[in-house]
Amino acid sequence: MVKMADGVPVIVYATKETHYKVTAEQIEAACTEKTKAVIINSPSNPTGMIYSRQELSAIADVAVRKDIYVVSDEMYENLVYDGEEQVSIASLGPEIYERTITCSGFSKGYAMTGWRLGYTGSSKDIAKLMGAIQSHATSNPNSIAQKAAEEALNGPQDSVEMMRQKFDERRKYMYNRVKDFPHVDVVEPKGAFYVFVDLTDALTKTYHGHPLYDGAEVARFLIEDYAVAVIPCGDFGFPNNIRLSYAISNEDIAKGLDRIESFLKELK
Amino acid sequence: MVKMADGVPVIVYATKETHYKVTAEQIEAACTEKTKAVIINSPSNPTGMIYSRQELSAIADVAVRKDIYVVSDEMYENLVYDGEEQVSIASLGPEIYERTITCSGFSKGYAMTGWRLGYTGSSKDIAKLMGAIQSHATSNPNSIAQKAAEEALNGPQDSVEMMRQKFDERRKYMYNRVKDFPHVDVVEPKGAFYVFVDLTDALTKTYHGHPLYDGAEVARFLIEDYAVAVIPCGDFGFPNNIRLSYAISNEDIAKGLDRIESFLKELK
Repeated sequence: MVKMADGVPVIVYATKETHYKVTAEQIEAACTEKTKAVIINSPSNPTGMIYSRQELSAIADVAVRKDIYVVSDEMYENLVYDGEEQVSIASLGPEIYERTITCSGFSKGYAMTGWRLGYTGSSKDIAKLMGAIQSHATSNPNSIAQKAAEEALNGPQDSVEMMRQKFDERRKYMYNRVKDFPHVDVVEPKGAFYVFVDLTDALTKTYHGHPLYDGAEVARFLIEDYAVAVIPCGDFGFPNNIRLSYAISNEDIAKGLDRIESFLKELK
Repeated sequence: MVKMADGVPVIVYATKETHYKVTAEQIEAACTEKTKAVIINSPSNPTGMIYSRQELSAIADVAVRKDIYVVSDEMYENLVYDGEEQVSIASLGPEIYERTITCSGFSKGYAMTGWRLGYTGSSKDIAKLMGAIQSHATSNPNSIAQKAAEEALNGPQDSVEMMRQKFDERRKYMYNRVKDFPHVDVVEPKGAFYVFVDLTDALTKTYHGHPLYDGAEVARFLIEDYAVAVIPCGDFGFPNNIRLSYAISNEDIAKGLDRIESFLKELK
């Protein structure tokens, strides 16, 4: 998307030590005179991590100091667990408010994925520019989806909380099982509906004599031999990782984890 | 849209003499070594004109000879009158087939405007490139609209023909009235649901002492003083023209035309 806008994407790699969250220091170090914006995502896809108020505040300071925009992807804002707090970076003060484009939508919090409806919060100037582009691309989102979204926002919100609680149970179940699997390492996710699995140790092993080069190779064996779909995370910058989703039924989660566990036990 | 794709749009102006259709000669003359594609639109918005098989064939020859793509916007393909033939330029031979991106959708022929569903026909290579962009933009169209569109395509088509006939009646009524209005000139439209009105003579007059600079000025007086909405056509390259739509009820068409007629009679 950055390239499509004639920008040059600069990837800032988060580390497991900071729970897969980039730090304000890293962002500052990556800024040049040409930097226009920083994109952050919390709760995070694919790691399930949540940036704290302090972490966001430090990033906001950098953005204001460097005079850059923040694109804050908060699509999973409703799916937060363990008493963690979902903070919108735009809420942290008038200067960061002005320079933030907050992105969200109905796909996750309201399980309206196929309806394809999202929204942004930004200054009027930026919204006008986005409107000028959108009016020549899709014109407008589907009107039926817009009516449904109005209902979703104005109607009772208890179904959202019910869903969040269900996800929370699945999260705990999945995390607690995966952390005891052999050859993997995992940080407990606090939001979204993913478990991010580090396979660095597994990749030193072989599977039926086959070397395992990366998470994509593991994903291939899992789908071909065990019929379990996982997402390899090379495109997220983590070729050693895979992403598991718990946005499926308890039964399917249990069955999928059994199979992943069987696969891992085969490694030598 | 061309600018967003880092292209340089070159506008080829059609004239009333060729019924607002650009000729193959004009397109050929406008081509340079940098030309990548030509965009054509038939039935045409805003003029309601239809390119004949011969006209399209001549354009196809130029495209093949100049080795450029054709983007053929055929959104109004179902709305064709007076026994005119809707020809897809891609159908005119294997060479033009290969280099044409045909664009259509459900907004007009199936009156599914708010559903926002369109489609293209192209070579697999081009489709893949478009998919790569779309997957990072909207991901996919709304799933409900996709199901509805399947029903629209597979279901009985008589409602489309019924609608076409209704539009045809309205077209004749609107054209026959407008052609007798003072200070305007109009070519009979053969497709879509628009009447394209040349105000060149009207613009030499004044309205209550106000000079009329262009179609936008006329549109402003029509909406402010007569509560009739028309589209000024400066953005289509015809500042002296306005576009009337007959995609409204017979009653509203009659009422709107009465008011436009009253306005034109006020000009001095």
